[in-house]
Amino acid sequence: MNIENHIKVVNDFPKKGVIFKDISPIFLDPKAFGELIDELASAVGGLGATKIFAAEARGFMFATPLAIKLGLPFVPVRKKGKLPRETLEVSYGLEYGSDTLCVHKDDVLPSDKILVFDDILATGGTAKAMCTLAERLGAQVAGLAFIMELSFLKGREALAGKKIHSMMIE
Amino acid sequence: MNIENHIKVVNDFPKKGVIFKDISPIFLDPKAFGELIDELASAVGGLGATKIFAAEARGFMFATPLAIKLGLPFVPVRKKGKLPRETLEVSYGLEYGSDTLCVHKDDVLPSDKILVFDDILATGGTAKAMCTLAERLGAQVAGLAFIMELSFLKGREALAGKKIHSMMIE
Repeated sequence: MNIENHIKVVNDFPKKGVIFKDISPIFLDPKAFGELIDELASAVGGLGATKIFAAEARGFMFATPLAIKLGLPFVPVRKKGKLPRETLEVSYGLEYGSDTLCVHKDDVLPSDKILVFDDILATGGTAKAMCTLAERLGAQVAGLAFIMELSFLKGREALAGKKIHSMMIE
Repeated sequence: MNIENHIKVVNDFPKKGVIFKDISPIFLDPKAFGELIDELASAVGGLGATKIFAAEARGFMFATPLAIKLGLPFVPVRKKGKLPRETLEVSYGLEYGSDTLCVHKDDVLPSDKILVFDDILATGGTAKAMCTLAERLGAQVAGLAFIMELSFLKGREALAGKKIHSMMIE
């Protein structure tokens, strides 16, 4: 499965001067999408994770089929005001501004080893915020997985010391 | 698979007086979640759909594993400013306010038969907006599927004439 065949390059999104790599065309090819999930599952299956974190909204699209494939619980990480039960929240900087991410407190146990997933690793802000949420709830981060890593934004530096798997590095 | 065992009732969310049925606990049980997707796939497999629409963000969590299971392309329907390529948009009223939904124009062909999915059928505003997007792009709506239908909000009336499958009716 060659992910690059399913990427469309869009100039000036979300703002002028940014070259956006749109990975959503993979969803139009269910065979390739299924293969991508299988390859991702193979790549992270040995990390010993007990649960998967993913942030809204594109992260959800990959994380739930991955969770079913790996037989692991999926924990949605959402923006403020979206989760109905008691949450832990963390604010963080991202590529184009700042934001707050939240997780249901009762979704995580101190014994958990969290696989942190996101579709894109850019500056690492979103992924680091997910690690912080996991660790503040007493859990460990088993590792991080991404579909595409934009290496020029140096996200790996923000995630120093963590195991990172990117399916494609730009 | 009994969905009701995986629902948590949350009072006063998203605003005072609303009793919110939180279906996210199913994600913590990957076996039950997988069974739910299998049952959903069996229920809608005969509609002859060629693509699946789902709206952000909870809809994505169910729609991508369903798309892989059915071998159908998945088309994300998103709020304004989230999709990078050329979109068609429609504004609509929803249970708590109003919003705009968008779809990439080149994700839909006039020959398509769209399965419209959402996790909850409430007033039907979101689902109807997805039908409108499909039809304005020349496609047909093969049917609609929901995890939970809140029948007292009369969403079926907003979707009169369409085939509707709800896995659970409250």
